[in-house]
Amino acid sequence: MTQIDTPTLDRVAGPADLRQMSDHELSAVANELRAEVVEAVSQTGGHLGSSLGVVELSVAIHAVFDTPRDKLIWDVGHQCYPHKILTGRRDRMHTLRQGGGISGFTKRSESEYDPFGAAHSSTSISAALGFTIGRDMGLPTGDAVAVIGDGSISAGMAYEALNNAGSEGRRLFVILNDNEMSIAPPVGAMSSYLSSLADLSRKGPFGGLVAVAEGMEQLAPKPVREGARRAREMVTGLESKGTFFEELGFDYIGPIDGHDMDQLLSVLRSARARATGPVLIHCCTVKGKGYAPAEGSTDKYHGVSKFDVGTGVQAKAKANAPSYTGVFGDALTAAATEDPTIVAITAAMPGGTGLDRMAKKFPGRVFDVGIAEQHGVTFAAGMAASGLKPFCAIYSTFLQRGYDQVVHDVALQGLPVRFAIDRAGLVGADGATHAGAFDVGFLGALPGMVVMAAADEAELVHMVATAAAHDSGPIAFRYPRGNGTGVALPERGEVLEIGKGRMIQQGDGDVALLSFGTMLGECEAAATMLAAEGISATIADARFAKPLDMALIAQLAQNHGALITVEQGAKGGFGAMVLQEMAGHGLLDHGCRVRSVCLPDRYVDQAAPVEMYRDAQVDAEGIVEMVLNALHRDRKVVDLHSAG
Amino acid sequence: MTQIDTPTLDRVAGPADLRQMSDHELSAVANELRAEVVEAVSQTGGHLGSSLGVVELSVAIHAVFDTPRDKLIWDVGHQCYPHKILTGRRDRMHTLRQGGGISGFTKRSESEYDPFGAAHSSTSISAALGFTIGRDMGLPTGDAVAVIGDGSISAGMAYEALNNAGSEGRRLFVILNDNEMSIAPPVGAMSSYLSSLADLSRKGPFGGLVAVAEGMEQLAPKPVREGARRAREMVTGLESKGTFFEELGFDYIGPIDGHDMDQLLSVLRSARARATGPVLIHCCTVKGKGYAPAEGSTDKYHGVSKFDVGTGVQAKAKANAPSYTGVFGDALTAAATEDPTIVAITAAMPGGTGLDRMAKKFPGRVFDVGIAEQHGVTFAAGMAASGLKPFCAIYSTFLQRGYDQVVHDVALQGLPVRFAIDRAGLVGADGATHAGAFDVGFLGALPGMVVMAAADEAELVHMVATAAAHDSGPIAFRYPRGNGTGVALPERGEVLEIGKGRMIQQGDGDVALLSFGTMLGECEAAATMLAAEGISATIADARFAKPLDMALIAQLAQNHGALITVEQGAKGGFGAMVLQEMAGHGLLDHGCRVRSVCLPDRYVDQAAPVEMYRDAQVDAEGIVEMVLNALHRDRKVVDLHSAG
Repeated sequence: MTQIDTPTLDRVAGPADLRQMSDHELSAVANELRAEVVEAVSQTGGHLGSSLGVVELSVAIHAVFDTPRDKLIWDVGHQCYPHKILTGRRDRMHTLRQGGGISGFTKRSESEYDPFGAAHSSTSISAALGFTIGRDMGLPTGDAVAVIGDGSISAGMAYEALNNAGSEGRRLFVILNDNEMSIAPPVGAMSSYLSSLADLSRKGPFGGLVAVAEGMEQLAPKPVREGARRAREMVTGLESKGTFFEELGFDYIGPIDGHDMDQLLSVLRSARARATGPVLIHCCTVKGKGYAPAEGSTDKYHGVSKFDVGTGVQAKAKANAPSYTGVFGDALTAAATEDPTIVAITAAMPGGTGLDRMAKKFPGRVFDVGIAEQHGVTFAAGMAASGLKPFCAIYSTFLQRGYDQVVHDVALQGLPVRFAIDRAGLVGADGATHAGAFDVGFLGALPGMVVMAAADEAELVHMVATAAAHDSGPIAFRYPRGNGTGVALPERGEVLEIGKGRMIQQGDGDVALLSFGTMLGECEAAATMLAAEGISATIADARFAKPLDMALIAQLAQNHGALITVEQGAKGGFGAMVLQEMAGHGLLDHGCRVRSVCLPDRYVDQAAPVEMYRDAQVDAEGIVEMVLNALHRDRKVVDLHSAG
Repeated sequence: MTQIDTPTLDRVAGPADLRQMSDHELSAVANELRAEVVEAVSQTGGHLGSSLGVVELSVAIHAVFDTPRDKLIWDVGHQCYPHKILTGRRDRMHTLRQGGGISGFTKRSESEYDPFGAAHSSTSISAALGFTIGRDMGLPTGDAVAVIGDGSISAGMAYEALNNAGSEGRRLFVILNDNEMSIAPPVGAMSSYLSSLADLSRKGPFGGLVAVAEGMEQLAPKPVREGARRAREMVTGLESKGTFFEELGFDYIGPIDGHDMDQLLSVLRSARARATGPVLIHCCTVKGKGYAPAEGSTDKYHGVSKFDVGTGVQAKAKANAPSYTGVFGDALTAAATEDPTIVAITAAMPGGTGLDRMAKKFPGRVFDVGIAEQHGVTFAAGMAASGLKPFCAIYSTFLQRGYDQVVHDVALQGLPVRFAIDRAGLVGADGATHAGAFDVGFLGALPGMVVMAAADEAELVHMVATAAAHDSGPIAFRYPRGNGTGVALPERGEVLEIGKGRMIQQGDGDVALLSFGTMLGECEAAATMLAAEGISATIADARFAKPLDMALIAQLAQNHGALITVEQGAKGGFGAMVLQEMAGHGLLDHGCRVRSVCLPDRYVDQAAPVEMYRDAQVDAEGIVEMVLNALHRDRKVVDLHSAG
């Protein structure tokens, strides 16, 4: 596939232009749009498959609904590239997911066509229902349309929203984009149920007929509708029972073919014209549609690097060290080999968490619960209560979804659930929504919780062993996205002493850097830079944010001109915990120049991780800056004294 | 109803004794148990109605299943009083919910018959599924039985668990205790759906027949089962479609009459004997069953004070001041009267949050989303994005359920959702599970979030006004359970300056007490006690934990011998935030005796709130102790110097 002419798409400055076009022209726009998405993402990388799956849907919705007055809300938002091209951001697609560029998700600050930003799953129906209240209370807002994938609708939050929307009975459009796929193949009973509904449209020759029959059904008054339903049953053989969605109070239309523009336009138009309450349109699509490499390998093409359009080959940078994710997966598999009670839980991220490695060897001991963090955490707690050793592997940002369960079901009961927290800190192209910023604080506040962070991949191996051995209560260990430092990996993990840090480098007393997690390398770089300034730095690795190594901290505080805590996390995390314990131990009473190097009190936009940390001043440069700042004041005071 | 003989119940030292009894004797046990629950709760107060609804169920489950090897998990756990009487805690029922007594919920540390504690809703199926994994992996654990109410099953977490359990296909028993009631009447489409299923059993003469037919159906192989289903349809007229639960992969039995011991025993026995996969038993009960005052008024009898068994009249203490909840409800209603864009959201707690007051005047502007905090928060965010002013009223402990939504949908997008956080701090008889301990920390970490706490009920009125006026981003205000201090309430709330505290009392410089929230009264009491020791205390009310009033804090730190922060919250909250900002501003560089009075790093068991705070050393006495401790060290140093 090479650059092709896009004459029709060129006439689309915004959605209003689509509304002037014939159905035939809209089909042409869709075809050109698909090619443009492939071309654009080949330059930047991104969520290709999801976007290719909704090309026709994006065109059809904007052609039928009155956006931006009508509010179009894409669930997760990673399928929004066609939408962005259609809504005035075509010329910025080359900046997608780059520093200073447009987001890979929908974002309110970016466009009036993004009325509700996203990135985490299953929020769209709740938000859309919120807009319907504004509309019904007379605010200048039109209809709300939520587009949600089959993976996302399996989450409890989406069910809560359907349940509430069905009961509210307000006019609302939910388009279920069913591609039998979340990131990994979807799991759970709901997924099977949707497949049974969708099978017909995929396999049978009556897909179009069903849609038309269903469309008619919606247009008709209730008694006629019943007739239509019986007619549909006769035509299609689909059992005429109420669907799950009808039981929840929605009108159900579908399944329809989400790549058939005529069908889409016809169903959306009739739904828009006639709906009085909540409507669910079940729309079947193919992830990666129209681009063979993406269709053939939906998993590898969920998020792609830059790639060659002709061959589909992705330009993956060669790594000099294994990824933290992979090291975790291997270390856990090794531990599971020795201990048959070790089990693992993921919420729809077997590959992202590295648990696919353990699942290969122990398929019966890895549990993918779907996008269901709340359940996943308490499921793990139940396992722990039964005597198993569960490792609950959830990204830092998604663990926020299961926070109450961590508090109420795990920590309060002192159950030994092991939390493996990947994607801690800033994560790069996925931006602020995926930042693992808050876990240290929200876990550290919980009595009985042990909180560790790995300084490098060898430390991660030790922490897996430590967690496996820790049976007296919950324990968490965090590590970042990306590759390790290249240190040699230990043959087997060593069980660390709980609450004990380690001295890395003893300086002359000018300043102590107390690192938590993978900032250790930056601390070492900062020490070198400081040495050039004539400042000697001691470096220690805290290993534990809870319990803290107060003996180590007291020693650092008392024997150094300043103590700088360094972490990849928000305020209120490691640095705050160190300060509060120091205060309690009287270690601040006689003066201690303590400073926290941590994420700033603002959200950090997407860029390469190293750039994001530079922006946040959480890097060697930022550490040096903080040290000079702390010691400078000291020097001034010394100068004053000697002048006096 | 007066004390009656309990000869049969006296023979029940534990569930094993039930298994030796005839069905007739089990019915007698149930009758006596009901009387004993009424008698016991009349002395202590507690969750009477829920417990009366499951008397027969409690007897039947323990008689049929092999507890404690089989794991019985009560969802929420507030219906566990009959269970506690049957499982060796009969003689401690008079200590229920008291300091040093047994918990009002199930609790692992209390009994082997409580395999998984609870208090928050909708966790039971997840935990039960966890136990089935342990069982299937060969650990010494039997079957798992979750008992969950119709209100609780509407929460997303329960749906996630059903979805996963249906897909896992493991032998698991879920008993849906359907009393058409959570605390308030239940809302949502699922509730209507359950009613439609249950109507039959309630209204028709065929209840027993249905159960038996259904029981037979389960026992039969699949083809026969289909026949049984058709037979059931003929007998009952119930449409023979798959239920919601069947769609999710469960076998569905019911509805059955949860007060008919013969039916219960028969269904449970056949299910236990034959189930190979997950089974849902739909069991209809009446909240308050068998005690007229509780049956007649299920809302007021959800949680009762001590009461007179004969008349049902509760002994409510007369309050000298209005409750914070009531003051909030009235202040919000007043604000809503002036501003038609103000709306309010509750997650199944219209009475508990005081929103019932606003709902009386503006029924169309108060939204009860059911037990669905995740959805509730994002629903509010959608409303805010549409231009409304949503007040999202969720208890501190339950806001943990919507944490990711607060982060991702509200704070990150800077949407002006107002969080009204009732039950902040320790809450008394509901104990550690309901403590509002962590909100200040988990909200304070979020960029752009404003966090306030009311020192008294007049301050709460001002904070409602401040939140209503704050359109530039999210804002939260916390206040405790219970009654205010009795201060005069302002005619109308005044809009406070964001990030500005107030000086309450200027001392001579010995110590400064910086209070956040309703600890202000304790600070004043502590100041009086300190004065007697010759120590002069300055008192300030921070009002804001974020943004902090750094000018005020600098002044307090620089002009006093010690600075004590005081709050009703966990470590990592207000005190930690003050310290981290002070460090950043260099205010700790030259010594500052800062201490945090806050909740200790352990969970505080139930008792009267004042006793819990005493236990936690978060009261006037604890403040004085902390001041003396801080200043004592200082005196020692002075002594040493003068000695030198």
